[in-house]
Amino acid sequence: MTDSRQDSDKYLKKRAFFDSLLTIYGRKPVLEALEDLSLPVHKLHLADSNRRDQLIARMEQLASERQIEIAYWDRKGLSRISRNARQDQGVALDLALPHYGTTEAFLNEGKKGGNQKNYELLALDGITNPQNLGMIIRSACAGGMDGIILPRKGCAQIDPLVIKASTGTLFRMRLLRCEDLAPALSEFRQQGARICGLSSHAQKSLSDFGGEAPTIFVLGNETRGVSDDVARQCTHRLRIPMHNNVESLNVAVTAALISFRRQI
Amino acid sequence: MTDSRQDSDKYLKKRAFFDSLLTIYGRKPVLEALEDLSLPVHKLHLADSNRRDQLIARMEQLASERQIEIAYWDRKGLSRISRNARQDQGVALDLALPHYGTTEAFLNEGKKGGNQKNYELLALDGITNPQNLGMIIRSACAGGMDGIILPRKGCAQIDPLVIKASTGTLFRMRLLRCEDLAPALSEFRQQGARICGLSSHAQKSLSDFGGEAPTIFVLGNETRGVSDDVARQCTHRLRIPMHNNVESLNVAVTAALISFRRQI
Repeated sequence: MTDSRQDSDKYLKKRAFFDSLLTIYGRKPVLEALEDLSLPVHKLHLADSNRRDQLIARMEQLASERQIEIAYWDRKGLSRISRNARQDQGVALDLALPHYGTTEAFLNEGKKGGNQKNYELLALDGITNPQNLGMIIRSACAGGMDGIILPRKGCAQIDPLVIKASTGTLFRMRLLRCEDLAPALSEFRQQGARICGLSSHAQKSLSDFGGEAPTIFVLGNETRGVSDDVARQCTHRLRIPMHNNVESLNVAVTAALISFRRQI
Repeated sequence: MTDSRQDSDKYLKKRAFFDSLLTIYGRKPVLEALEDLSLPVHKLHLADSNRRDQLIARMEQLASERQIEIAYWDRKGLSRISRNARQDQGVALDLALPHYGTTEAFLNEGKKGGNQKNYELLALDGITNPQNLGMIIRSACAGGMDGIILPRKGCAQIDPLVIKASTGTLFRMRLLRCEDLAPALSEFRQQGARICGLSSHAQKSLSDFGGEAPTIFVLGNETRGVSDDVARQCTHRLRIPMHNNVESLNVAVTAALISFRRQI
């Protein structure tokens, strides 16, 4: 019994560690990340098939200087790690982010009573511009949001552009990954969270939205808005009132107004 | 007497019209503006010395199709219009923006009792990124600010990038030009306006800043903050309270939080 408990603890710890890894790929992004000493790097992955040019030599040198483990893989192995064979250019890098996790882990904490306070999260639906993603992270972090749900499908992923636009806040913000946004929101909803879609056509204004309960604010694509699948999960629709017939705001600005609404 | 009154009215009208002109320059920006039918164009200016290539021919064709007057100048004449001989590439274009004016005209209205209500303006100090400038205009317009003070010195100027980032709001927002920001703010101050510098080091929080009076919020450069000359004109220093040790926000986000602070 004790052995199996220990094994399971070990397994869960290991799994939590792997959940905190963010894998970036492509020669330029990986080289830039290796050169940025503020980034906590776990492991460098290289394909055997890479021509040993200056760039690869420079990566190996940086990894050795920073005492970062290097793993060599065949093309297939590498593409399993990068999850993007077409764009990885034979190179991937694991960053170990302390606040990087999954919606699943967050929901499990909730079941155990770990985050039963009235958390507020942002959820991103179709945010494809890395600059905007970085600015959303920065604003949400400064505004004190409890986390950002970032689905793998349909959104920009964390890359050096995003890291740069987040001006270092990426490593302080809780990021919750999931595969698809709609099913993840459905689970949050089943646990009692309010799911609020921001829309310029909504009747209710953000300023009239009160009460205390776990709440998720969904930010949609700037042009297309919130997608249909995600809209079906929304329990509330809210708008930000605007002057001068302006129809929409930059999505990072919207994120900031939500995050700071009780502080300014 | 009547004649001279009419002459002076005519002169002032003409001057107000010319104050509303925004001159952009450079071959690509001018061509793009001519192709954008939503932009109100007054006049196309070309240097005699231009080689008559495809680009120039296309501009002339577009101007003729849109019934826009073309003026031809020697190099010196053209550079007097563009005010940037090094970058105008022999081409300039006047846009006629309905809400584009000067701080001087705004202050004169005040003296005549025209804007004695408690206006709120943003003033830009060292905002050099066109993307940010466009986003500031968009946010301030949506948030219902009464105008934006844009000095010619030290700030990005309105160009096609800014127009694009403003997503069409540029033509609805009152823009007040001046040469240098500090002397312009000094005049506003003499007319009784409160001049508020935003700074992360300020003691007083934006949320504690109440009262009703004409107010100008100064936004400084993201890296260097508000410049010394401008800081000396400030009657108040305010900060936006931030979580997670975040030190600064994107300047367009700051503009949005100020503009929307009473509505969200």
